[in-house]
Amino acid sequence: MGQGKRMNPIIPNKKSGNLFILSGPSGVGKTTLREALQKKIPGLRFSVSWTTRSQRPGEIMDQDYRFVSKKQFEHKIKADGFLEWAKVHNEYYGTPWLPIKRWLHKGSDVLLDIDIQGARKVKKRIPQALIIFILPPSKQELKKRLIHRETESRTKIQIRLKNAETELQAVKHCDFVMVNQEISFSVEALETIIKAARFRVKNRF
Amino acid sequence: MGQGKRMNPIIPNKKSGNLFILSGPSGVGKTTLREALQKKIPGLRFSVSWTTRSQRPGEIMDQDYRFVSKKQFEHKIKADGFLEWAKVHNEYYGTPWLPIKRWLHKGSDVLLDIDIQGARKVKKRIPQALIIFILPPSKQELKKRLIHRETESRTKIQIRLKNAETELQAVKHCDFVMVNQEISFSVEALETIIKAARFRVKNRF
Repeated sequence: MGQGKRMNPIIPNKKSGNLFILSGPSGVGKTTLREALQKKIPGLRFSVSWTTRSQRPGEIMDQDYRFVSKKQFEHKIKADGFLEWAKVHNEYYGTPWLPIKRWLHKGSDVLLDIDIQGARKVKKRIPQALIIFILPPSKQELKKRLIHRETESRTKIQIRLKNAETELQAVKHCDFVMVNQEISFSVEALETIIKAARFRVKNRF
Repeated sequence: MGQGKRMNPIIPNKKSGNLFILSGPSGVGKTTLREALQKKIPGLRFSVSWTTRSQRPGEIMDQDYRFVSKKQFEHKIKADGFLEWAKVHNEYYGTPWLPIKRWLHKGSDVLLDIDIQGARKVKKRIPQALIIFILPPSKQELKKRLIHRETESRTKIQIRLKNAETELQAVKHCDFVMVNQEISFSVEALETIIKAARFRVKNRF
C-alpha cells in the first residue's frame, strides 16, 4: 500500500497481532502441530508456559516449558505476572503475560498451548483471542498416543483420559475445532485460520 | 474420518455451509474478485441478486443479476421471498432466500455480493454470516475505476462516490476487511477466509 494519500482512517496503520490458543486433551498432538506451524509461519511467536511438573525425557527448558519450583511459581502469582494460571494434575501451569503483551503490540501473532480451562480464562481477559480445539480421531487413538509416550504411569494416563472426556465438552466454548487425523492437513488448517484472522476487523487489543 | 467409532458427538455429521457477504463501495472490484474466487473454489455457490436497474453492456441475465420489472420485484417482496431487499440509487436490489437456504443446508458455502446496508440486514437475520468489506487502495483509484467502466453518467458516478464515502464508515460492522490493491492477493485472502471458516464452531444455521 502506498504511504501517501490514504482514503480512510479506519484501518489502523499499526495493527496488533492475534492471539491464538491451541487447546485439546493431552496426547492429541498439540506440540507436534505447534512445532510444524512455527516452521511454516516464521513470524509466529510461541509463548512458553511455566510449570512445576517434572521435566520429561527429551523436553527442553524454556522451549517446551519453563520448569520452575513451587516457590518460584507462587512468587510470580503474587506479582500478578500470569495471564492465567491453574493447578492441573496437582501441578502448577501458567502463562506469563509480559512477553505476550509485547509481541501483540508489535503486531506479531502469538500462539499459546494451554488447557481449555486456561483458554477460557484468557478469552475472558482478551475476548479477541481465538481458541482452536484439537480433537483426537477417536478415544482409542488418544489412549494409544498417551501409552506410546511412555513417560507417565498407568494411573496418570487414566487421570488424563478421564480429564480428556470432560475437556471434549468444552468445544462449544471454542472458536474453531478440528480433528487431528492427518498432521499435514491439520497444520494447513491451522495456517489458514492464522492467516485469515489477519483480516479480521476486531483484532485490536 | 473413519465411519466407525467416533469419540465425540460434538461435531455434527452434517455441517451447514457458511454464508459470506462481499461488500464495499461500487467499483471496488467485487465482481472480478467473486468470479476469480468461484474458479478457485468449485463448490462455492453464488447467489444472484434480483434488480430492477437496467442491464449494462456485457452483463448476463441470471449470472450478474436477475433483471426484473418493478412489478415482478414488488410481487416477490409481498411473498416474503427476499432475505433482504432495498432501494439503492432509486432501483430495487434483493437477495432471494430460498436457493441460499437450500445450499447452506446441503453444506455448501454461499457468497453474496450486496451493499453494506443489505449485508447488515442479512447479519441481523443470520448472525453466523460473515461480512467481508473490500476497500479501494485510494479514493482516486475508485474514481478512476468508475469512470473507466464508462457505463454510467457523470451524475450517477458522483452519487456513487458520495455513497462510497458513507459506506466506508461501515467497516466497523464487518467481520473482515481488506484493501483490494492486487487482485491475486485479494483472491488468496478471500480463499483463506472461506477455508478457515469451515473450522468455526458456530457455523450451524
